Amino acid sequence: MSRRQFIRNGALTAGALALAGCSSDKPEAVEARDEATAAPKVEWRLATSWPANIKLLQNAAARLAEHMAAMTNGRFTIAIDPASKTKAPLGVFDFVREGQYQMGHSASYYWKGKDAATQPFTTMPFGLNAQEQAAWFWYGGGVELMNEVYAKHGLLSYPGGNTGVQMGGWFRREIRSLADLRGLKMRIPGLAGEILARVGVNPVNVPPGELYTALERNVIDALEWINPYLDESMGFQQIAKYYYTVWHEPTGESQFLLNKSAFEALPVNYQSMLLVAMKECSFDMLCESVYHNALTWSEFQAQHPDVHVGALPDDVMAELRRQTELVNAEIASENAEFAAVLDSQEQFLAAAKEWTAISEQNYLDLREA
Amino acid sequence: MSRRQFIRNGALTAGALALAGCSSDKPEAVEARDEATAAPKVEWRLATSWPANIKLLQNAAARLAEHMAAMTNGRFTIAIDPASKTKAPLGVFDFVREGQYQMGHSASYYWKGKDAATQPFTTMPFGLNAQEQAAWFWYGGGVELMNEVYAKHGLLSYPGGNTGVQMGGWFRREIRSLADLRGLKMRIPGLAGEILARVGVNPVNVPPGELYTALERNVIDALEWINPYLDESMGFQQIAKYYYTVWHEPTGESQFLLNKSAFEALPVNYQSMLLVAMKECSFDMLCESVYHNALTWSEFQAQHPDVHVGALPDDVMAELRRQTELVNAEIASENAEFAAVLDSQEQFLAAAKEWTAISEQNYLDLREA
Repeated sequence: MSRRQFIRNGALTAGALALAGCSSDKPEAVEARDEATAAPKVEWRLATSWPANIKLLQNAAARLAEHMAAMTNGRFTIAIDPASKTKAPLGVFDFVREGQYQMGHSASYYWKGKDAATQPFTTMPFGLNAQEQAAWFWYGGGVELMNEVYAKHGLLSYPGGNTGVQMGGWFRREIRSLADLRGLKMRIPGLAGEILARVGVNPVNVPPGELYTALERNVIDALEWINPYLDESMGFQQIAKYYYTVWHEPTGESQFLLNKSAFEALPVNYQSMLLVAMKECSFDMLCESVYHNALTWSEFQAQHPDVHVGALPDDVMAELRRQTELVNAEIASENAEFAAVLDSQEQFLAAAKEWTAISEQNYLDLREA
Repeated sequence: MSRRQFIRNGALTAGALALAGCSSDKPEAVEARDEATAAPKVEWRLATSWPANIKLLQNAAARLAEHMAAMTNGRFTIAIDPASKTKAPLGVFDFVREGQYQMGHSASYYWKGKDAATQPFTTMPFGLNAQEQAAWFWYGGGVELMNEVYAKHGLLSYPGGNTGVQMGGWFRREIRSLADLRGLKMRIPGLAGEILARVGVNPVNVPPGELYTALERNVIDALEWINPYLDESMGFQQIAKYYYTVWHEPTGESQFLLNKSAFEALPVNYQSMLLVAMKECSFDMLCESVYHNALTWSEFQAQHPDVHVGALPDDVMAELRRQTELVNAEIASENAEFAAVLDSQEQFLAAAKEWTAISEQNYLDLREA
């Protein structure tokens, strides 16, 4: 059958039962067949934590919706509300838990106030990189652990797309020592904010849409957002002239959230489609991010010669590393689930570090030589 | 509807038309509906280039078949023949071109004798790593270029799963200088074999199933296979005691091949499922490979203390790099399509190198410190 023929047949479908002039005396059976094999109509809603114009993050949900529609001939639709519509970027967890939306797209570490064990699924300071984290998620038990954590909230959670290595953030003044960090108001979420608080930073939360203005008006002195591709479009380089490299988000996995009951009520083939498509979308974001960051970065320094790019001083890094270990140990001592997730990641990291060193790192050093 | 209910309904389907007792006078219309919405039955065959016991490579096709069956309630099946069944690991290209199999799973650089332009889609010496290559494939026009190359053979080709960074190979004797390479018989495919030939190596082809015996009986003096996870299970460390790090396969993308006419004859929703599922499988192999290599490598040196692991000497590397550029330029001058693919990769590599250096490499150096 040619593709054209099939599309024509597909178009006939809606009216097919009527056309068939079927005078069956067992209409339930016909209905059963329609439901089971002809794929029921499903209309889902998905809320994201992102403004509609932050394409890289918003694309994962859009892509998922396109895939589901294409794979079901339009029978499974997902309508997406960005944070710019819901006005509640951090309401996603509750929206999905309560079933107002069947799905969400967000970042797991935004839920630290609800459940500290959700944090390591986005990123960990000095932890796994994107490739290692994906290995841990899909082969090292990470996805299973994540779903144990979320199950008690009536939710399912799957990796939702990676930004790759992020940058350390934008500062109005150069950081030459730990003393320069003290008293700084900085937008930085997750564990990194807690770690910086231990060295005197005042971590604050500012919605993405207000970051530029907050920095411009001195509401904050520094911020971290994502990476050059997304940061440049926010315009931070016009205000802050010190752009530091990463320590705190060596990977940045976003998150699909699903209402567990809604998912479980789906036909099994729809469940399979969702699982396969979510994973494809998660991979795709990493590809998109690496591609655009490479292009952006290749012109960044020529276009913004007044921006100083570099690492935080060694003694600052050493102290941040020490505080990371202390903060992790503290949370682990209070929260057995966080401890289990951390332990699983750290065990894999110990092995992965050696392999990454002899493979990726060794190769990158060779290529640079 | 609960999942259980759905499965029961699904089981009823085959007999539903009979049960319905439909006495329609327009049976064609009923049939049209069944074909269009209830998803036609498709039985495909796929041949791979791998022995059944090389799980990492074989798993991509197996996974694809599972996904297609799950997403279509068993209506789209893919029966897989490993090379151990067809006895023709390198017959995959022709099998799929001629329609004997609708699909194949192999490596693009195996087809260099048929079309030199197929080579860069697997890996390039001193080229892109896995993450950069994925960005190039999906956002930098790589997949489109690949399908231009394959279209003239009546084929479609998509990334089929990555091994990540490979190792440089196993040698019975230490390589201390270029002189030590001269006259060595080495199993090494693709461009790397051609480059080594320029420095006096005698590259030979040995089927995977015969590699151990060939090395043991001195039919070959050296070989490269894949990475510690797969190499260790082949037992090479029992014979060759020098294990070198990579220069020639910084990424290793395998390949799904499709018969173009067979694909185009599928309903569009089946086409979508295949495209999404192939990409998921491609990502999954990288996760599986990184995971198992990390575990294998963490114990490798303790378990095989007599194996020397290291890089080829600097002057050997420099010469291999020089020869790589010469060989690439030579093939490009003879083959415009190869030149176009190489140019596209090299342009992206120039940008990606800088971004990878300030992000991944910078982070790995920090983590090591």
